[in-house]
Amino acid sequence: MKLALLNIGSELLRGRTINTNAAFMGETLLRNGYAVETSLVIHDEGATIKEAIQHLLTSHDILLVTGGLGPTKDDITKKVLQEVFGGEMVCHQPTLDRILAFLARRNRPLLEHNRLQAFVPSSCEVLENEMGTAPGMAFYRDGKALVAMPGVPFEMKHLIQTRILPWLKAHFPVQTHLTKVVRTAGIPESRIAERMEGIEQELDGRISIAYLPNYDGTKIELKIAGDPQEAAALQTALDAAHIKVAELFRDYVYAVEDKAPDKVLAEWLLHNKTTFATAESCTGGEIVAKLVQHGGISATLKGGVVAYQVEVKEKVLGVRPSTIRDEGVVSAAVATEMAEGARRVMGCDYALSITGITEARPDAPPQEQPQAWIGLAGPDTTQTYHITLMHDRKVNIEVAAYAALVFALKQMVGSKYQ
Amino acid sequence: MKLALLNIGSELLRGRTINTNAAFMGETLLRNGYAVETSLVIHDEGATIKEAIQHLLTSHDILLVTGGLGPTKDDITKKVLQEVFGGEMVCHQPTLDRILAFLARRNRPLLEHNRLQAFVPSSCEVLENEMGTAPGMAFYRDGKALVAMPGVPFEMKHLIQTRILPWLKAHFPVQTHLTKVVRTAGIPESRIAERMEGIEQELDGRISIAYLPNYDGTKIELKIAGDPQEAAALQTALDAAHIKVAELFRDYVYAVEDKAPDKVLAEWLLHNKTTFATAESCTGGEIVAKLVQHGGISATLKGGVVAYQVEVKEKVLGVRPSTIRDEGVVSAAVATEMAEGARRVMGCDYALSITGITEARPDAPPQEQPQAWIGLAGPDTTQTYHITLMHDRKVNIEVAAYAALVFALKQMVGSKYQ
Repeated sequence: MKLALLNIGSELLRGRTINTNAAFMGETLLRNGYAVETSLVIHDEGATIKEAIQHLLTSHDILLVTGGLGPTKDDITKKVLQEVFGGEMVCHQPTLDRILAFLARRNRPLLEHNRLQAFVPSSCEVLENEMGTAPGMAFYRDGKALVAMPGVPFEMKHLIQTRILPWLKAHFPVQTHLTKVVRTAGIPESRIAERMEGIEQELDGRISIAYLPNYDGTKIELKIAGDPQEAAALQTALDAAHIKVAELFRDYVYAVEDKAPDKVLAEWLLHNKTTFATAESCTGGEIVAKLVQHGGISATLKGGVVAYQVEVKEKVLGVRPSTIRDEGVVSAAVATEMAEGARRVMGCDYALSITGITEARPDAPPQEQPQAWIGLAGPDTTQTYHITLMHDRKVNIEVAAYAALVFALKQMVGSKYQ
Repeated sequence: MKLALLNIGSELLRGRTINTNAAFMGETLLRNGYAVETSLVIHDEGATIKEAIQHLLTSHDILLVTGGLGPTKDDITKKVLQEVFGGEMVCHQPTLDRILAFLARRNRPLLEHNRLQAFVPSSCEVLENEMGTAPGMAFYRDGKALVAMPGVPFEMKHLIQTRILPWLKAHFPVQTHLTKVVRTAGIPESRIAERMEGIEQELDGRISIAYLPNYDGTKIELKIAGDPQEAAALQTALDAAHIKVAELFRDYVYAVEDKAPDKVLAEWLLHNKTTFATAESCTGGEIVAKLVQHGGISATLKGGVVAYQVEVKEKVLGVRPSTIRDEGVVSAAVATEMAEGARRVMGCDYALSITGITEARPDAPPQEQPQAWIGLAGPDTTQTYHITLMHDRKVNIEVAAYAALVFALKQMVGSKYQ
């Protein structure tokens, strides 16, 4: 069974909007046994849309379409769907009611744009959208399906999870797909590949392996697929391979599930009722912002200080001017005093600090090239760690924030993930 | 002239990696007069790659390929390119030298994986990659071109900017493409469209208009294209339309160029030598992290306090317990004291605060539904502003951070952007 995504939207091709929808859909569908084969982005023009739909439907069984719907461009996509699947445009009363209620709550009048959103081709099954005014539409013909939905991310997510996945499962029963992940940091992809060659013969032949480098390290992904009746045996084979791989890279593993360092840390803090705070310089709040993404974190995260300028390091965190003068602002000593200051000021069990340089200057001496010192102050001791940064400013901030989170995890959680 | 992107990478289809490459390429190419027509993502499998290349080359003139190169998967893509364009695999000595130097700096041996990266089809022109070990490759035949590059974002960016754009301009001279943008916040897309209808007749017929809603508001994009010899006339027509649109939405405009609120604010602070700090609760560092993305900001940004828990609001920012008790933690009064506290503690001209709720709880009363109070403390006065949040936690944090930045801009910069 082959599945394609079609994202309609000139803003995606012009690069003004990053296609996070495709990533969300790829991951969510895969977790449910539907692997995306192809992902295509096109402009919202009638002829282009029609051609893309017809082309993709010849080589795929399921086509999920996002975008091309919404108050200002609704008509083009729906007209094409009507041409391809037949029927006439009819008003879907529950959608019209939802639009009227939505507008009433905002004291806005019903514009022609809004009213047209309630019209759909009679050949589709309407998948109701409780998060917005454009409904989802499912078409099914000759064993093939097309499901169209708005491109607004939270509306798309709502429809995928509550309407589209159940609809797909009813029309296209799937094979069992199992995935396990080992997340590593501090070892390059080529070294992982080289080392994996040593154990490849020992792994079940049905298992496929991928190496996915990112700013938070390299993820090793193990996959197996097969008949649902064999699910238990597939799981056993995958588990055995997963343990072998995790042990092979034990010194570099920070998680044996597919979780980013901030998520692993947030969960560990909550589970262990350990309070935490940050003191950031070069990452400018990126570390604390990553932790705040996780619901419930307010029970354990006290807060953070972004001590971007020296005077804030001194005044708010109590870093001694003499330390900065003698050791330099990017030093193990300043990282130590920042972490200890944050721990004291915010009254928490652990505090994580970072001070560094994220922007390369061609004329700077080696000691001023991008790098950072990370500090972790705990109840008993303060540890520090040095990293070299090799990318541009934006990427260096990401890489440094993840390196700090991984360092905190390794110090606090230790052998649990090794 | 039709241009297509082909991103090779199972990690993109599995959704584990967000396709930021396509966005960067779309935007950069467009700015140089090359509009992307189609963007396709496929798995790194030889047959799939070959079929996609052949299909895209029948309907496009230029095909830019990313990914499918790198130490663990190099051979498949290069073999396909050799099959399609002919020639034999030859060693590119400057690339081999670069790989050897790269490995020597890291004290790593030359693995077979690494050595193979220096081999390219003899039918290509090598575009040297100074940021990594896999070179770019440009193929040109019968008026059509394919340029392949690694998918690692900073290597791709380097190649696009320093090698591929000059190569494209030499082989495919372009029409003049001009774009202008009006960035608005606080007015929905449907209201913009409705209001635009009133002036559409007054605008030059060659101008196309797009509305691009995002978390920081809705962008209105005006475009015109034509012969390079007409460039001055095109610019005049576009400028006239741009002024009309900016005036039509004057109350909602925060920038008349394509810059995010954090960039506009960072530039204004630097230009006016105005010092700034933040005090964030619900956005958890997202506002200060956005400002820190901008190089040079250290001259004006003192820092920030993420006062996630009440005690940090009181202890670090000096918010009075009685204010929290009487007004509630999400209130204009607390936003005011947070902003004034940050301004005092960090000694700056302006401080921006936010306190709110980003996560919806079904059982919560209306006053505990997602919302935030924003405060801006300046030399003369402190202003506050209330927003309602309507999405999920992650999106609400983004929306709230941008709303705070836009509020600061409107208060500080005022009529300059109106």
